[in-house]
Parts: sequence; C-alpha cells; structure tokens
Amino acid sequence: MNFASDNVGPAAPEIMAALSEANTAPHMPYGNDPFTARAEALVREVFEAPDASVHLVATGSAANALALATLTRPWDAIFCHADAHVELDECGAPEFYTSGAKLRRVPGENAKITPETLRTELDEITPGNVHSVQRGPVTLTQLTELGTAYSRLEIEALTSIAREAGLKVHLDGARIANAVAAANVSPAEMTWKAGVDVLSLGGTKNGCLGVEAVVFFDPQLAWEVALRRKRAGHLWSKSKFLGAQMAAYLENGLWLELAGKANARMAQLIDGLAAVPEAHIVAPPAGNLVFLDLPKSAHDRAFAKGAQYKLRTRGAPEPDDHLVRARIVCDWSKTEAEIDQLLSAWRRAA
Amino acid sequence: MNFASDNVGPAAPEIMAALSEANTAPHMPYGNDPFTARAEALVREVFEAPDASVHLVATGSAANALALATLTRPWDAIFCHADAHVELDECGAPEFYTSGAKLRRVPGENAKITPETLRTELDEITPGNVHSVQRGPVTLTQLTELGTAYSRLEIEALTSIAREAGLKVHLDGARIANAVAAANVSPAEMTWKAGVDVLSLGGTKNGCLGVEAVVFFDPQLAWEVALRRKRAGHLWSKSKFLGAQMAAYLENGLWLELAGKANARMAQLIDGLAAVPEAHIVAPPAGNLVFLDLPKSAHDRAFAKGAQYKLRTRGAPEPDDHLVRARIVCDWSKTEAEIDQLLSAWRRAA
Amino acid sequence: MNFASDNVGPAAPEIMAALSEANTAPHMPYGNDPFTARAEALVREVFEAPDASVHLVATGSAANALALATLTRPWDAIFCHADAHVELDECGAPEFYTSGAKLRRVPGENAKITPETLRTELDEITPGNVHSVQRGPVTLTQLTELGTAYSRLEIEALTSIAREAGLKVHLDGARIANAVAAANVSPAEMTWKAGVDVLSLGGTKNGCLGVEAVVFFDPQLAWEVALRRKRAGHLWSKSKFLGAQMAAYLENGLWLELAGKANARMAQLIDGLAAVPEAHIVAPPAGNLVFLDLPKSAHDRAFAKGAQYKLRTRGAPEPDDHLVRARIVCDWSKTEAEIDQLLSAWRRAA
Amino acid sequence: MNFASDNVGPAAPEIMAALSEANTAPHMPYGNDPFTARAEALVREVFEAPDASVHLVATGSAANALALATLTRPWDAIFCHADAHVELDECGAPEFYTSGAKLRRVPGENAKITPETLRTELDEITPGNVHSVQRGPVTLTQLTELGTAYSRLEIEALTSIAREAGLKVHLDGARIANAVAAANVSPAEMTWKAGVDVLSLGGTKNGCLGVEAVVFFDPQLAWEVALRRKRAGHLWSKSKFLGAQMAAYLENGLWLELAGKANARMAQLIDGLAAVPEAHIVAPPAGNLVFLDLPKSAHDRAFAKGAQYKLRTRGAPEPDDHLVRARIVCDWSKTEAEIDQLLSAWRRAA
Repeated sequence: MNFASDNVGPAAPEIMAALSEANTAPHMPYGNDPFTARAEALVREVFEAPDASVHLVATGSAANALALATLTRPWDAIFCHADAHVELDECGAPEFYTSGAKLRRVPGENAKITPETLRTELDEITPGNVHSVQRGPVTLTQLTELGTAYSRLEIEALTSIAREAGLKVHLDGARIANAVAAANVSPAEMTWKAGVDVLSLGGTKNGCLGVEAVVFFDPQLAWEVALRRKRAGHLWSKSKFLGAQMAAYLENGLWLELAGKANARMAQLIDGLAAVPEAHIVAPPAGNLVFLDLPKSAHDRAFAKGAQYKLRTRGAPEPDDHLVRARIVCDWSKTEAEIDQLLSAWRRAA
Repeated sequence: MNFASDNVGPAAPEIMAALSEANTAPHMPYGNDPFTARAEALVREVFEAPDASVHLVATGSAANALALATLTRPWDAIFCHADAHVELDECGAPEFYTSGAKLRRVPGENAKITPETLRTELDEITPGNVHSVQRGPVTLTQLTELGTAYSRLEIEALTSIAREAGLKVHLDGARIANAVAAANVSPAEMTWKAGVDVLSLGGTKNGCLGVEAVVFFDPQLAWEVALRRKRAGHLWSKSKFLGAQMAAYLENGLWLELAGKANARMAQLIDGLAAVPEAHIVAPPAGNLVFLDLPKSAHDRAFAKGAQYKLRTRGAPEPDDHLVRARIVCDWSKTEAEIDQLLSAWRRAA
Repeated sequence: MNFASDNVGPAAPEIMAALSEANTAPHMPYGNDPFTARAEALVREVFEAPDASVHLVATGSAANALALATLTRPWDAIFCHADAHVELDECGAPEFYTSGAKLRRVPGENAKITPETLRTELDEITPGNVHSVQRGPVTLTQLTELGTAYSRLEIEALTSIAREAGLKVHLDGARIANAVAAANVSPAEMTWKAGVDVLSLGGTKNGCLGVEAVVFFDPQLAWEVALRRKRAGHLWSKSKFLGAQMAAYLENGLWLELAGKANARMAQLIDGLAAVPEAHIVAPPAGNLVFLDLPKSAHDRAFAKGAQYKLRTRGAPEPDDHLVRARIVCDWSKTEAEIDQLLSAWRRAA
Repeated sequence: MNFASDNVGPAAPEIMAALSEANTAPHMPYGNDPFTARAEALVREVFEAPDASVHLVATGSAANALALATLTRPWDAIFCHADAHVELDECGAPEFYTSGAKLRRVPGENAKITPETLRTELDEITPGNVHSVQRGPVTLTQLTELGTAYSRLEIEALTSIAREAGLKVHLDGARIANAVAAANVSPAEMTWKAGVDVLSLGGTKNGCLGVEAVVFFDPQLAWEVALRRKRAGHLWSKSKFLGAQMAAYLENGLWLELAGKANARMAQLIDGLAAVPEAHIVAPPAGNLVFLDLPKSAHDRAFAKGAQYKLRTRGAPEPDDHLVRARIVCDWSKTEAEIDQLLSAWRRAA
C-alpha cells in the first residue's frame, strides 16, 4: 500500500536472478566485462541506434548530471521546465557537474514546455552578448513531474526549435519506460528520431536495484563522458553488476512489461476515481504517476488503512472539508487488490 | 551627449591626481602600501564600521562575485531580484565563484524585492530537504537596475526576514553613492545599521577608473576573502593604484559630491520631461538612471543631434508612431547644457 | 586464476543473500530504511564510535572524494603520498569535488608517508601567505598502494604532526579490512584512536558488490556530507541495497573473515616464493597485495596456464631474461590450489 | 633602493600620460573603444601575428588562469616547472579557472623544463587510461622564476615534444619583455614561431600600472576567452584604461626600452659582484632578476643602508658567517647610482 514513489517497489525477480548469475561469472573490472557489453548492445538494439555510446551509472541524478555536463559549457543556460527534477530535486547536481551553468526555468501547463514558452525563454538570451550567459541545451522530462507525457509530435516541435538555435536536446527518461509502454511509439521514435541527442534511460524506478544508462546517440563525446563518469566516482570496478541489471531489464522487453503493469494499475485507479466523491485529477496521467485532489477525510481513511503517499500541504493546516493534493505513483509490483483497497478507502463516506 | 551608462564618463580630476601622486611614492606590493591602508581606513570611517574588512578590486562583477562566494555554499540558492545584475549581466560570475550555486529570481515591481515576494521564494525551499538546494544569502541592488531605490525601512524589512531565516544579506552598491546622495540617510544607516552584512561599494561608475570595495561589516571572514581574491586573479601587485583611487574617492566626501552632480542632472531631465510630448517614465528615478518611453521620432531626433543611449527594441520593428523604451544614465560630468540639448531634441515636434 | 585485483572476485554469499532479503522488505527511499540504519549502527559499533556520522556510497572514489571535499577548502593543498590512489587513479575526482584544491605529493619508501617527508612538505607551505595555497588535510592509505601497512604508531606519528599544524586526517581504507585482519589492532585503534578524523571504509574490494562508507568520527559535518553526496548523484533512492550490503559485511565479523582469507592466500604465496628462482619482493606485503619482480619467462609460463595479473612494463621491451615487475592481489575467494598452481607455473625452470 | 620585485617601481611617464589622454576621450564601454583597439592592433603588429586574438586584463594571475583554462579540460594535467609561478604563487588560480585541473610539476635545473624531464613526465600519463588525468597543455615561463631564460632553440625543443603529443603550449611572459630585450630574437621568434600557442604578455612588472594581454595566436577560441574573462570579473567597463596602458607600452618600442634599462642595471650589478667577497650567483641571469648567495653580514650592511629585498631563510637561523640567499630584481627605474650603492654596501668588509 506504498504509493509514495515507484522507487519503493522491489526489484523484479529477473533482475535479482541476473545479479546472481553475474556474481559467479569471471570478471574484468571497470566495464570490460560481458554483462556491460551486453547491456550496451541491448540499449543500441532497443533504440535502433547502432552507433550510440552507452554509459551505465547507478542513479538518475548522476545520469542527468553527466549528460548535461557533457552538453553544456560553464557559461551556458540549460533550458528546463520550471518544475523539472534537475531544477528542484537534485540539490544542484547539474550546477556542480557543469562547473556552474545556470538553469533557466521555462513555464508550461501540466509540467510541459511548449514551443511558445521555449521560444520566449530563448529570446531572453541574445547570442553573442558577452554580459549574459549563453544559450545551452534544452532538457525535457518524459514522463513529466506531473505524470503527463509529451507526444512524439510535441517532442519534435521542441527539438526543432532547439536545433534551429543550434542547441542540443537531453531527455530525462527516468520514467521513459512508462511513456513508451503507454504510447504507440517506438523507443527510437520517442527519442533520436524525434530529435533527442542524449537520453537518461531509467531503470531504478522500474524494477531495478539501481541502474541508469546515459545514451549519446552521437557517440563523438563518448570518451569525454567516460572521463567525466570516472572523475565523478560513478565508474564501478564491479560494473558487471550494473551491466547485468540493465541487460536483464531490456532483454525480452522486460522493461516495457514492468512499465505496462505499473501503467495498468494507474489506469485502474483512474477508472475507479469516478466513484470517489470530489476527486479531482490535476493533470491527465500518461503512465504510472498522478496528482490528485481529494477531501482530507478521504486521505485520513486511506492512511488509517495503511496507505502511504505524499500530501502537498504547504502553509497552514486546512479545515477538514478542504481538498488536499496528493501524489500517487504505482510501481510494477502493485496489485489490483491494492488499488481496490485504496479506492475503497477513499470512497467510503465520512 | 553619451547617456548610455555612467561608465562612459571620465574619471574625476581628483582621482587622476591621486594616481599620479601614488605613482612616485615608494611601494610595497600586494596591498601592503599606505594608499590601500588609507582607502580601507576611509571606508571604515565613512561607514562608521571600525571593524569592517575591506577588499579592493577593479570591477563590480568581481566585487559581487567575491562577496557572494564568501557567503554562499555551493549547494545554496542566492535570492536576487529577477532582473538583478548578478543574474542577467555577469555571464554567470556568481555561479563560477560559488562553484555552482543557484540564483533564485525573486519578482517585484520597479526592480525591487518585496517582503511578500521574498517570503514566497524562501517558502519554496524547505530547509533540511536534502533533495533541494538550501537557502543562501539574499542580495539587493541599490540603486536598482531600473534606477529606483530601496528606502531604509524597505531594506530593514527585507534584512529582518533574512535574519529570521538565518540568512546573510549582500548589497550590490555599484550605484550606492547615488542612493546615499539622494536620501537623507547615512552610509551606515543604509547598510549595516539596516541589516546589510556585506557591501559591494562602487567607485567605477562614479568617477573612478576602476575600483570597488568589498566590505564585510563582520571581519571574521577577511582571510577567506583575501584568498578568494588572490585565487581569482584580483589581487593587484601594484595595489596602490586601487588604493589611491578609493582613498581620493572617499576623501572629503568626493564620492557624494560626484553622485550629487549626476543626480542633479537626472532631476533636471525629469523636470524637463513635462514638456516632452508622450514621454512616459517607467519607474520613479531615485538617482541618476531612468527608463523612459518616448515616440520613436523623438529618439531619432536625439540620435541625429549626436545623443547616445540604449533602446529596448525586442522583437519586430515598431511603426514610427509607437513608443520605444530607452535607458538614460547621467554620470557626474554631464552638464546642464547637455541635458537641455537632449530635452530640446526630444521636444521638437516631428 | 585472476590476480589482477581484489575487485575481480565474486561477492560473498552472505552479501548476495542480504540483497535478496532486502528486496522484499518494505522500504522508504533515500536512506530512510532499516537496512541503512542497521549498516550505520554496525559501523559505529565496530569502530566503537557511537557518535560517528556514516554515509554509504557505491564506489571508493566517491567515498574518498566526498571525504576530502568536506575537509578541504578550494584553496587548500591535500597532502597525499606521491603514488596515492587519489592522486593517480581517480581521474582528478578530488579536484572535482573540492572545486579545485591541489594535491601535494609527499614522497616515502614503500608507498608510505614518513614524519620527515610530511614535515618537509608542510614546511613548503607557509601559513598566512596569500600567494600560496594553504595547508589542507593529510590523507593516508591503508593498505598502501604497494600492499604495505602503516603500523598504529606510524599512523599516530603522522596524525600528531597534522594535529599540531591544525590539519585533519583522512584514511583511504579501501583495504582497511585486510590491514585490521592482519594486525593485532582494533578498528578503532587503527583509526580515530590513532588520530584519524575521517575514514573511507571499503567493502567493494572485499566481497561486496559495490558499497563503501564515509565515516566522520566527529559528526558535526554530517549534514554537509549528506548534501554533497546528493549533489554528486551518490544518494541512492533504493539505498536499502547499499545498507543491506554493508550491514551483512560487518555483521558477525564477516568483513574480517573475508579479509583474513585473502591475507592467508597472500601469505601462502609469499611462503612459496622462496622456491621460485630470482623472485624478488618489492615491499613486504602486510595483507593481500604484493609487487614482485620475476623473470619474464616465469610470467610467460603463468600466463600460458591461464593466470591473469598486471605487469609494469614501462618503456622499451625488455630482453627475455630480465626481471619484470608484477602486481598480485588475492581476493577472499582465492583457493590454496590456485596459489599452488601459480607458484608452480613460476617455479618450473625454462 | 627597493629590489624586492620589479613591481615596486613606478609606472613610466609615457604610461601615465596615456591614461590622462584616454580619460578625456569619448569611449564606449567593455572594450569597444579606440584605445583597446589600438592596443590589440599593436600586439598583433609587434608579434607579427595579424590574426591573433588579444584580451586585456589587469593582473598576471588572471592572464595565466584565463589562458590555461581555455586550453585545459577539467580532467587534464598542466605540465609546468616544479617552481612555476602558476604552481607556487597564484593560490590555486589555475585550478579555480580550469574547474579542477591538476598541475604536474616538471623538474629541471635553473627553473627550466628540459626535453628529458618533460618527456619523463609525459610518459607518466598514459593517454586513454580512464583512471588517470589526461595530458593537457605545457606551460613555460620566460624569464623563469630564477631569472634564467629559455633560448629560442630550447623553446622549440619543448614545443615540438608537446606538438608530437598533441598538446598546446602556453608561455607565461610576465617578464618576456626582459627576455626579448636581452636576446637577439624577435617577439615572434620567441613565441609563435617557436611553437607557442598562447602568451601571457606582461606589462605590470615593466612600467605599467596593471595590464597584461592574453594572446591567442590562433584566434579560434577568442569568443570563449571573452566569455571566460567576463565571467571571472576581468572585463573592465572602462577598458580604455587598460587599452591606453598597453598601447603606450608597445608604441615605439617603449616596452623593450624599459626592459633594456632594467636589464642594464642587472648587468651592472653582476659585473660589480666580482668585487664582492664570497658572492655566489645561483643561476646565470638573463634579464633583470637574480638569486645570489652572500654572507649574512653583507645583507645586514645593505639593509642598514636602506636596501630592500627578500632573503630565503627557511628553517633555523644561520650563524653570522654563513651565506644567505637573496632575490634581487631591477625594475626600469633603478639608477646606476642605486646599484653602486648596493654593491658598495655588500662589498665593504665587516
């Protein structure tokens, strides 16, 4: 009954089995092992990107920071949504890894940058003005922080604006598995075919213990990324344990299968909300994450039943009958019964 | 007829004379000279701050960056006005000097932070949340980028909010001379008595060649500032040439005399605007800087007469009869006749 | 037959079992789980340091860099042995994490700093000279890069010099388990009781998948370390998988048992060397690592039998009968039979 | 009688006159003025480098740090002499500006890197090893810290080693005027024709108030240097005051005339040393700086006569009859009489 995040769920059995298998295999350290090689090959295969350079790390913040640092000069502005994870939830990791670049907060409904808001922010920085930071990369998040998704066309619209301005595009794909599983779009179509240059491919939130891949579709900067990763302490000596996770994750479509399960539970939840009085969905969920407004009493009943999730209760406490916003996330392991229990707790009149 | 900035004016004769005098005096390098000592003593005297540590540098960006870096940890957010010089016009110097701190843009009318907007931004950062950058110092600008000024009470209101939150306050005083000259408030009352911890005291824009003082009213961090200044390449071997400027600048109230002249010319300009058709003042000028909206034709006549200043002409060209925004700055050397000429050019009907 | 490093060996069964157990346990992310709490408590218990702050990360470079960054100001020099891992093998991680501190290479036989060499290097930096970097922390490595160990008295001699100079001491304990297992000294006696302020406690090389603990015996900087870890992308959302490893590693003395096994195999190897013609030990091994000079023909026979280890063959190729230096490391999983095989290959006359 | 450094001397009258002239000339800020343009043109002319990009700053540390930061990636090692100014006397400025590059100390007699010592240090870093910092630029100093000079052939020998290794070469020319004035070699021959890529051209020590030029003979990185300079707070709003100095300095060979005067006084001093008992020259001076060993009694007599210079008295106090090392520097303003006085004080028997 823990819906606080998708990172509260267990690792998938296939991932655990892969670790065990890797453990007894002979090993050459620092990425020179067959598991890492297999993981890299599978990323290239799944994304139809035979030339991509692939760099495994253990956390999403590391993946984003390495990707952005490689695309950004210290005097650049990175264009991100005002509520992006890189801006709000990484304690300044992009600033640290870029040696002091600036993040420029682009507004937009439903946690999505729009062509208009991106153009407006780009226009705020005149190229060639030595007094100002310069235009740097654009970074998008898929799924977004609100659980919405960019369509393929929306991504293309933004990347083409970036490209016209000579800028690179990064995609924070901590939950890209959920986006791909939900859309009728291939991994390639959602990324490099739509103009994305660099991807943070998440595994941790979707059934791994801790593994993400930084994917440069143009491999020209591969050596620089390798050096940056080492210098940041993110090159594992026993990298086979990262490789084994990522390889098992992508093998036979496991990543989409797991994401599909999480999405299905969210769909079940949304369906059931129709019967929950005063329930209000903040933004249409595209995958496994949603923000909801519900009466405080409904939350109280759910918590009493053992449910766990986060409330947004800024400022003074609300009277009992006011709506309170909550973030609900399903991981791959959630069951139909758990969703039913949650809905039932919300539904029952006070 | 150059009103583009106060840094287009000449150095004052007293400053030039001080350089000549210093040149033939015996010298010990790196700040161990009597001119630097005299400058430091005068800053302490003028600001009634006998314990303050004073650090001379040649540029305003250096002064601000050193001040902020000393107050800020790399994982902190600096709270500045959305249009502050440190945010828009220093090419990321604060980020460089702080090793990657974040600038948080606080909104506010007339380029001024208000208690409300400051509180709102502070509330966006929950202390003790490891995922977020932490609350760092507040930096104010006096005069502001729009030429307005904070009153002593307004400064106190902001610094007391900062103090309650355990935060330090920096004042970017590139034009503080103009603010002090215009107000019935002493230098001490506008700064440390109003709760300011660190001041960038500007000289360059007001009749010096290039000198600013970083003033820490609490001298505890003096040695750290000294090391940071050296490490940034801002410690002069022939520091007597910085010291001589700053000493002459503060001696016998020259700094306020020069600022008073610049302010008087701005007052003359504002008076004369009553007779300029369609002239619109964007924000009430407190010193020597103003933003004005005028018909494009008025600007054209002024430029034809040899006037120089900056227009804000973002986006597509305007039809001839539209208003166009301009920034007008008076330095200490501007004459009554020059102001009359400018007004006259603006006034004459097309 | 892979003696290239202790990181080529498998994780211990107890560690793998702990991961499986943790996987199905409920958890809250980012270190708020019972496994992380248990790991931290065990570090404190094993090191008799009830107040220590403990911070888990996945790699040794991350542990060292976080420890040193927290002890060092950007304008400091870190005193390390000329051949230290932090100087030669981390691609500048300490420089990155410290925002540009300098590493000062202290010479010394057998990869060990001596009181004389440390004093000489300290004397090279005059405190209070603004032109020079300032004195920062001293970092020692135990076991050293050559496989030797500092005695407790040797550590005390160095830490007391540091303390007199007002400097902190860090110990890179990537192989401290081997040092403790070999010596008649408790973990506390080898560290804080001998004057060490901060420890990088290694797990990865000694039977874990990837976990190290940064241990601050004085917990005053705990919050700063937490922020630095997050900002560097080293805070795991599923930190229970780090916690479970470290807890199992320290539980019931497993760490010393594993290290003892590795040390025993090295002792067997050293014994057997008496019978290997022309074998020369570069420095007396204190644990599980040694550098050896052997005839090239001996290496060739070993490689032909499938042995793996690293040769130091700088510069031009040697004639066949010359000695060539090799690094031999035993991990906990090596068997008596493997050592016998290696010795036998070396022994047999050409 | 102050021989402590060449930066204790006055600015030349021509430089002071140029400042006065510039002061009353109209100007546009931030380098868009005719004095800066003239200075840049003169650097190009004097160095026969019509395409070079020229960037004025006020201090030598700033010039070196900007030059090196532009040539160096954060994970690179900069190869400098073990006693170089950038290593010992800039408080880590290169580390700050490069975001954490490492300085690699190359040994060599007389403060000069040799082909052998450079090759040895280069060989210590294997390109393509991800664990190690990578090979970065080579930086030479002319005159060296000991007052010696590299011959044109010696520079070529070093730059060709660098070039073979794919590395750039920087020359710290804080005293290059003295080297050029003393040698039968043109400025171009001593720099880009000998393989130097970037020059820090000093003015401050040789008769200016404070001005240095960073000269990139290949202008491709000009914009990056401009941004780095701004971001570091080294772009002057009233840059005409830097431009006027540098223009006057190079106009009509003033820079070589001033350096020639300083060199002539040093030659006079060296000649006179023949008559000073027990005088020992540490390294053959090529310009205006020398290290000397003299009896302590000789120093005492000089100090009693009002001479000022620095002694190297590390460690315990020496008995009265021991030799003590001193650094003697002549600036352009020193007179024959002053040298005679100094020699006379040294000469007279106790």
